[in-house]
Amino acid sequence: MGKKNITFDDIAKYTNFSKTTISRYFNAPDSLTLETQQVVADALEALNYKENKVARILASGKTEFVGIIIPSLYMHYYAQMLSSILSSYEKFGYKFLVFEGNQDKKIEQQYIQELLAYKIEGLIVLSHTIPSKELASYHIPVVTIEREDQYTCSVNTDNYMGAVQATSLLCKNNCHILFHLNQQVSPTTPGYQRIQGFLDTCQEHDWPHKLIKTSFGKTYEENEKRMNEIFQEMEESYSGQKKGVFISNDTHANIFLNLIIRKYGALPEEYRIVGFDDSPIASSAILPISTVGQQIDKIAQQAVELLVMQMNERKKRKPTPLATPIHQIVTPILKRRATTD
Amino acid sequence: MGKKNITFDDIAKYTNFSKTTISRYFNAPDSLTLETQQVVADALEALNYKENKVARILASGKTEFVGIIIPSLYMHYYAQMLSSILSSYEKFGYKFLVFEGNQDKKIEQQYIQELLAYKIEGLIVLSHTIPSKELASYHIPVVTIEREDQYTCSVNTDNYMGAVQATSLLCKNNCHILFHLNQQVSPTTPGYQRIQGFLDTCQEHDWPHKLIKTSFGKTYEENEKRMNEIFQEMEESYSGQKKGVFISNDTHANIFLNLIIRKYGALPEEYRIVGFDDSPIASSAILPISTVGQQIDKIAQQAVELLVMQMNERKKRKPTPLATPIHQIVTPILKRRATTD
Repeated sequence: MGKKNITFDDIAKYTNFSKTTISRYFNAPDSLTLETQQVVADALEALNYKENKVARILASGKTEFVGIIIPSLYMHYYAQMLSSILSSYEKFGYKFLVFEGNQDKKIEQQYIQELLAYKIEGLIVLSHTIPSKELASYHIPVVTIEREDQYTCSVNTDNYMGAVQATSLLCKNNCHILFHLNQQVSPTTPGYQRIQGFLDTCQEHDWPHKLIKTSFGKTYEENEKRMNEIFQEMEESYSGQKKGVFISNDTHANIFLNLIIRKYGALPEEYRIVGFDDSPIASSAILPISTVGQQIDKIAQQAVELLVMQMNERKKRKPTPLATPIHQIVTPILKRRATTD
Repeated sequence: MGKKNITFDDIAKYTNFSKTTISRYFNAPDSLTLETQQVVADALEALNYKENKVARILASGKTEFVGIIIPSLYMHYYAQMLSSILSSYEKFGYKFLVFEGNQDKKIEQQYIQELLAYKIEGLIVLSHTIPSKELASYHIPVVTIEREDQYTCSVNTDNYMGAVQATSLLCKNNCHILFHLNQQVSPTTPGYQRIQGFLDTCQEHDWPHKLIKTSFGKTYEENEKRMNEIFQEMEESYSGQKKGVFISNDTHANIFLNLIIRKYGALPEEYRIVGFDDSPIASSAILPISTVGQQIDKIAQQAVELLVMQMNERKKRKPTPLATPIHQIVTPILKRRATTD
């Protein structure tokens, strides 16, 4: 056939159908009989029709593009989540436009506006910058992961249950006092449930406890410095007491563990530690760290499926929009390693 | 203006130009005088013209899409590189379609074929799967990073110099014997120069040395097991000698360091260690690890600029293709930390 582009005209002539029929084949195949669809499909093959996807997008509005907004690739949790989402290509064929927000709301909004102009079919949002109400106003399918989700479909870890598991494990380790270290998180984010789960569990059983909410800074050095202050304070004020420390992510748990090992050469009986996420750092630390494992593959898979379900609905001739957003919860898995008994 | 879509017809009527002129404004603005361009631009604003990017792509072939093929997001090096590349959006406006190859050549080829059908403007390739000759055959601008690059433009770290720096530092630490641990790498990849730099430096100065090329496996547990075998062998065969160990990445250097600290409680005089990459794990290890730092931001920036240069050239009315691929080299920076003197 040479390199000439095949037009709708060519296909119409070859099949003896009208150009309208050919156009329908691409834009609304449901409106044709299966026989007609087969005749056109055969013609395309015979004519060696090379699909111009861009032309097809223009006609059908089906871009097969999905946007992903992540806050940062520095945290291994997000890199792993992104990896799992991307791997859905093999199953669903969607191509992902990835944007790293770095907490700049204006740039993030500009980027999303561009993606909308490019007619992306859906959006997966992990960054915390744009309120879910605004995300819902874009009128395309959206799924959020581990962030405020009042107006959007979402998939989150059961953070509350994870915190209950971690707190209970530390108590079973016969700790005299339980600590929870966390960042300043808003009560509307799923991660806040880690604090709530810790407090409820301690209060229910009358376990002595202390919640330390603080900001750790941006660089590794700042994080280590702040953690060292907390460590020194524990050493001074709670000397002789067995301390159970539940830390809201493995990166910080690793820093805390290193400070202890550098001082004592080993993990003394006086400390027990549980992290959160089951990041690679939890396994590769000087002592493998006990942690509440997020099922990242499962979260990513459910998020993509929830999005595909909405995107497919919109392709129907009479789509039924969701009455209310769907919120899915994935159970965390406690990993007992060397920093607890 | 309400929600009505503005057509070329509307713009033509408003400006009193022909539809051909309006079309040229979008597809070949260079063919119009600056005055004419200004009149059309003003009209678009007055008419509140909402750009349909897909229509514009179809007309101009300028999608502003760039594909990125990375081998894996598990290695922090790639996550960081991806992050740096994505951040170029603010400067150049390109949107990135990201694919994680996981060494499946067939899926990777299928994905690239799809991207070509979507008329991406360029491609950045970090995965090793597809030979550069095949990448060059796509006839779109390509830049590769730290992989075989005979037929493509590329940006690489000066791996040879990095190896010379690491080897010399270990020798200055008065080590009796120098080791280099690396994976089975092909001589055509830039990473092979780490081996070459180590061997040349040792041979030039007649320093006793041993190259250990091995495969480490896929999981953390397999990697740790293999590293432990190597450690035991060193303990038995080189006891009493001061061992300088240059390890080809920080992930492995961290595993090696942990094995030593677990046995001795501290880093004994008998061991000195240098890693490669300056990954976050190098700073957050039980002892901060000396390492050859790759300037990831700089590599990413040069790669994007090299790609943009080629993409801009192709938009000219008479593009001049590159006579030969351009290969750029970025100097590594030696970071001296606690695992060397």
